[in-house]
Amino acid sequence: MTPLSIIKIGGNIIDNPTELAQFLTDFSKIEGYKILVHGGGKSATKMAQSIGLVPQMIDGRRITDKPMLDVVVMIYAGEINKNVVAQLQANNTNAMGFSGADGNLILSTKRNHPTIDYGFVGDVQKVNTPLLKTLLKSGITPVFCAITHDGNGQLLNTNADTIASELAIALSEIFEVTLTYCFEKPGVLYDAEDDNSVIEQINHELYTKLKAEKAIHSGMIPKLDNCFNSLSKGVQKIKIGHHRMLQNAEVIHTSIEL
Amino acid sequence: MTPLSIIKIGGNIIDNPTELAQFLTDFSKIEGYKILVHGGGKSATKMAQSIGLVPQMIDGRRITDKPMLDVVVMIYAGEINKNVVAQLQANNTNAMGFSGADGNLILSTKRNHPTIDYGFVGDVQKVNTPLLKTLLKSGITPVFCAITHDGNGQLLNTNADTIASELAIALSEIFEVTLTYCFEKPGVLYDAEDDNSVIEQINHELYTKLKAEKAIHSGMIPKLDNCFNSLSKGVQKIKIGHHRMLQNAEVIHTSIEL
Repeated sequence: MTPLSIIKIGGNIIDNPTELAQFLTDFSKIEGYKILVHGGGKSATKMAQSIGLVPQMIDGRRITDKPMLDVVVMIYAGEINKNVVAQLQANNTNAMGFSGADGNLILSTKRNHPTIDYGFVGDVQKVNTPLLKTLLKSGITPVFCAITHDGNGQLLNTNADTIASELAIALSEIFEVTLTYCFEKPGVLYDAEDDNSVIEQINHELYTKLKAEKAIHSGMIPKLDNCFNSLSKGVQKIKIGHHRMLQNAEVIHTSIEL
Repeated sequence: MTPLSIIKIGGNIIDNPTELAQFLTDFSKIEGYKILVHGGGKSATKMAQSIGLVPQMIDGRRITDKPMLDVVVMIYAGEINKNVVAQLQANNTNAMGFSGADGNLILSTKRNHPTIDYGFVGDVQKVNTPLLKTLLKSGITPVFCAITHDGNGQLLNTNADTIASELAIALSEIFEVTLTYCFEKPGVLYDAEDDNSVIEQINHELYTKLKAEKAIHSGMIPKLDNCFNSLSKGVQKIKIGHHRMLQNAEVIHTSIEL
């Protein structure tokens, strides 16, 4: 099968113009088919505050009421997505920015939780793989923000890590997919305070052990749960680390396998 | 040549949810290849005011400084574009929302005016017709907002009427293009106060006469200048009127020919 690189960048890269420019230069140099998924950064929270909204979080997840949905759509699909696309164009990458509504690329359903009303939050149901294949073969580099739709006219806020992993799973049916999560740390760490403690290889057995020891905790748990789920569903390879690894294979990072 | 319908809707439709929903239903029923271009409406101005910006206009054109550019990108490419796309999906139209940066679909250059600094405003240089053709043939209905890019990473604000006419001109090389401007009035009027005074046919000779008599003035002049320019460059047909005409050919509107 043809290789496909799916890269997800977190909010800390989005929030730092110098890091973002360097990342986009590095991303543009990746050969072959590729897809970028970007998180939101702090500007949605800032915008919400400046117009008088108070962001609500439960377990690290944003509660998305209607005014907050409007803000994340503006910032994620508008400001961030279009600026990233324009910068990729300047790097000779023919990027095209998408929400899940565009081309019906990612259909989701509004989350129905027994006790918590997450608001306008969507869980991914279906990825439009035939259209993504057509776009990739037409020389397009898709750039996804963390907004999806329900098919009935409603936009929904969706976790960017989840979008990256759902794209990877769906596209692994027709491509050999490598999924890479880039963030500000060099990888998954034994000791969160020590950047030199990168776990270079992690499998499901080690993950279970480290979770029990609380060496891996909080925000890293849903990220790694997503990873093992993706691997079990056909994704070839997953990497986590600083975006420097994109252009230098020697840069230490975490490789994840089943 | 294959027919292609390009429809532009103005801000007054965008600002009215009931009218917008009706328009999108009617638009979805248009057969064959089609493209939608939407204006901005009042929400960019409202958002600018709510975060403390003071919008500046010269001759009906918005002066786009950096904070205002950020706002129009958010609102036009984010909020409006993605909600329109999601609603078209609900109408079984496989819409895909674009700025000019996406797929390098519309390249522009920052306006260089001898006396007025318009700020981040772009004049269209080039439309990516081969990629638009590929998208249309893949079953996609492109939905453009009024944002373009300069190819060097800079987004630019561009008049939506101009985007519609530049798309129509470029695509008339490979399609038989009908360009339709939908707004809140039934057409070009002899008497701006009388909705029953629609000029049903206008050619360049009549236009010149009516301009001299000041029967046509202010905002209608750049709109009609755009139309005659488009017709002289290959567009087949141009219509102006209320969006009701999309689904009922009997509805009175203005037809423009050279």
